[in-house]
Amino acid sequence: MSKESFVEQIADIEKDFPRWYTDVVVKTGLVDYGPVKGTMVIRPYGYAIWENIQKELDRRFKETGHENAYFPLLIPMSYFTKEAEHVEGFAPEVAVVTHAGGEELAEPLAIRPTSETIIGTMYSKWIQSYRDLPVLINQWANVMRWEKTTRPFLRTSEFLWQEGHTVHATEEEAMDETMKMLGVYKEFAENCLAIPVITGKKTEKEKFAGAQATFGMEAMMKDGKSLQAGTSHYFGQNFAKAFEIKFLDKDGAQKYAYTSSWGVSTRLIGALIMAHGDGRGLVIPPVVAPTQVVIVPIAAKKPGVLEKCAQVCEQLKKAGVRVILDDTDNSPGWKFNEWEMKGVPLRIEIGPRDMEAGKALIFRRDTLEKNEYTLDNLTDSVVALLGTVQKDMLEAARVRRDGRIVYADDLDGILNGVEGGNFVKAGWCGCRECEDEVKAKTAATARVYAEGETSEKCAVCGKKSKHTIIFARAY
Amino acid sequence: MSKESFVEQIADIEKDFPRWYTDVVVKTGLVDYGPVKGTMVIRPYGYAIWENIQKELDRRFKETGHENAYFPLLIPMSYFTKEAEHVEGFAPEVAVVTHAGGEELAEPLAIRPTSETIIGTMYSKWIQSYRDLPVLINQWANVMRWEKTTRPFLRTSEFLWQEGHTVHATEEEAMDETMKMLGVYKEFAENCLAIPVITGKKTEKEKFAGAQATFGMEAMMKDGKSLQAGTSHYFGQNFAKAFEIKFLDKDGAQKYAYTSSWGVSTRLIGALIMAHGDGRGLVIPPVVAPTQVVIVPIAAKKPGVLEKCAQVCEQLKKAGVRVILDDTDNSPGWKFNEWEMKGVPLRIEIGPRDMEAGKALIFRRDTLEKNEYTLDNLTDSVVALLGTVQKDMLEAARVRRDGRIVYADDLDGILNGVEGGNFVKAGWCGCRECEDEVKAKTAATARVYAEGETSEKCAVCGKKSKHTIIFARAY
Repeated sequence: MSKESFVEQIADIEKDFPRWYTDVVVKTGLVDYGPVKGTMVIRPYGYAIWENIQKELDRRFKETGHENAYFPLLIPMSYFTKEAEHVEGFAPEVAVVTHAGGEELAEPLAIRPTSETIIGTMYSKWIQSYRDLPVLINQWANVMRWEKTTRPFLRTSEFLWQEGHTVHATEEEAMDETMKMLGVYKEFAENCLAIPVITGKKTEKEKFAGAQATFGMEAMMKDGKSLQAGTSHYFGQNFAKAFEIKFLDKDGAQKYAYTSSWGVSTRLIGALIMAHGDGRGLVIPPVVAPTQVVIVPIAAKKPGVLEKCAQVCEQLKKAGVRVILDDTDNSPGWKFNEWEMKGVPLRIEIGPRDMEAGKALIFRRDTLEKNEYTLDNLTDSVVALLGTVQKDMLEAARVRRDGRIVYADDLDGILNGVEGGNFVKAGWCGCRECEDEVKAKTAATARVYAEGETSEKCAVCGKKSKHTIIFARAY
Repeated sequence: MSKESFVEQIADIEKDFPRWYTDVVVKTGLVDYGPVKGTMVIRPYGYAIWENIQKELDRRFKETGHENAYFPLLIPMSYFTKEAEHVEGFAPEVAVVTHAGGEELAEPLAIRPTSETIIGTMYSKWIQSYRDLPVLINQWANVMRWEKTTRPFLRTSEFLWQEGHTVHATEEEAMDETMKMLGVYKEFAENCLAIPVITGKKTEKEKFAGAQATFGMEAMMKDGKSLQAGTSHYFGQNFAKAFEIKFLDKDGAQKYAYTSSWGVSTRLIGALIMAHGDGRGLVIPPVVAPTQVVIVPIAAKKPGVLEKCAQVCEQLKKAGVRVILDDTDNSPGWKFNEWEMKGVPLRIEIGPRDMEAGKALIFRRDTLEKNEYTLDNLTDSVVALLGTVQKDMLEAARVRRDGRIVYADDLDGILNGVEGGNFVKAGWCGCRECEDEVKAKTAATARVYAEGETSEKCAVCGKKSKHTIIFARAY
């Protein structure tokens, strides 16, 4: 990489947010474009964030009783037709294998866009009795949805995700699972990604193809647009009936089971970039940061400086901190720019004068503050500060977001709200026509709604409101 | 699952090894057959082994300086034709996407059978100068090779694996990397899977399509056949030239780089099943066992028994042991059969009489021995015993294997050796014709050879021998 200034290469975040985003993801080495249209290469710096996300989520899934498994990539096309809404939703986006091993296949095979159909098929084979329930399985996998307009992490033909697929004896249990995993996602988004999210129900129009109900979490990006960061679906008996997932209940009767599925993807990396990034580049929360601390020696050739830096580095490593010592030949200023662009949460600067004074400087990427700390107990200070940064980032994001939630009681209000880069809360009568009208007039979509929370009237048709809903322009 | 005896469901390992294998993998819940021919579903018990394998290998890859990344699943077909040997080797096995998003694609896309071509394409873009080298990247991914005859874990259309792809400035560095990763694989196979392996060079006939040299590790299965458990390839400049991976060297000259790749797959699960399994089912080495210890209460309804079992279980969990307490209604005998079939390394039995005597019984799955241990320091005993089992399993496998390595100095000797279920060591002149003749006459293939180790004469043609080679029938 050449030594020109990184920062100059990034578009102005205030003037051109979309360009800023693509500049940042490519120039910090998170991602590159793959040769096939709409595909991405997740480079080591981006993949390390994904690994941290996986680790945190996987632990939570296991703590809530789930096990991992792996189901085949290729699904017979005929499987999709078994659930009418599902095929309508996914068939247009499917990539199809027609030839293999030098021959044309008898039946074309879909590359999974999601795995309800193949997992449902296996479950129908594995489940016989109520003793086999619940089934609580998660899969980490790649999926493919052929999209017309793509952007790294946000919408790509292929992406990485996890998909949980569960089976239960009763409606209540399946609904509990659906809501429990939505809660796991929310807690994870807030405590690991430092992104406050609004959870709620998706409208009929926006729900997952084949679900009885979809619940989602919505995160506000710095341009005021919303990003759907995770979804949890309650299927009722839709898929159980389509795939014959039946069990012999305690009462001796054969019954259809109730199922759920829930997923988050590499899209979360896009979410954290756009929720926290600034004019200098990425700002990564410590919990998922590939590098949490970078040590930059000042006047590195002066006696003892590099040794002291190496010593601090070792101590931090021992304390479990992901730390690197940048002992390259580049100037401190160049290093500052580079690591700031890469969003490393803390930078420690140690030079001859600091050492003499028994001090080090620590720069916080989130607040851009620089303060002095004593070298003696630097490790403790750094560990504590990482925790502070994590909490402060969530709080700052919450303040930013809450300042951009406005209320509207008519269509003009909704339009003004979204034009100003806000989430707009409004009353909604619950009908599709009003939802469509908002989209037509404002380019905002219904994000999530809180069922049964009534307000005065529907902001579109003026009739009695049934729900409080959030409209926003969205990724 | 019904309560009939598990063991009766498994074919006799002595009489029908292939049937024993498929019985064991399906009936222990490791795997199931997917709906598309040749695909497998890796069920939670099987996937948990893979997760342990991943964890152990991933740590070793990172300790040797590698980072993970993710490259696209779909590769333009034209990429394969850039390296002549490579396309010849892989094109016949490729699954091809011809339609996506409801349209026919301009260029058909291959589902990756291996990723040298797409990774090489990206590397050519990323690498400009010697400062960018070495590149040390690994990928965990699914790959697809359309095979005519398939068997779970051993040969499936889709499988999971890791593929390391590295780029170096010099031939020496690339060769060092190739051999270093072969060493990592060998250490892992021996210390984690408890499988002794023989490493060496592959013949021209058996090497990876496009490699200058392939090195492999071969493991002996209980039927005396060999299983290729991992390979490491030295490419020289083959792929660098095909994909224009060039760099500006310190001397100011543009040079082609040297590359390597190395991989192991879910095949390793098949290896450990066939290296250790016995008439009762699986025997899983502790390091990769999903469950290391099962506690079975005896006379569970007697006062204090379940409480004591639960207490022991908690203590073991705290010590980091993967333990479960089987407190189901099944009889102890039924539980013994089930957990023995599933290959759990240790079983602890605690009943009223044991408690009175301050003792517990521990059954070792590997040796089928049962011994008394004092309850007071049971956790220490269990932790120590798990280490002993791990070591003993490797040693037992080594003794078994070494007893089945025979020497031959003519074709009859090779035939007799492999018919007896042995690895046959022989002198080899190095020519393809002799290798082919062994295969035609004995159905054994050249596994690996030690370069330059000479013995008297080639066991096939009788001419001077150049290498010591191992012939065996293989999976």
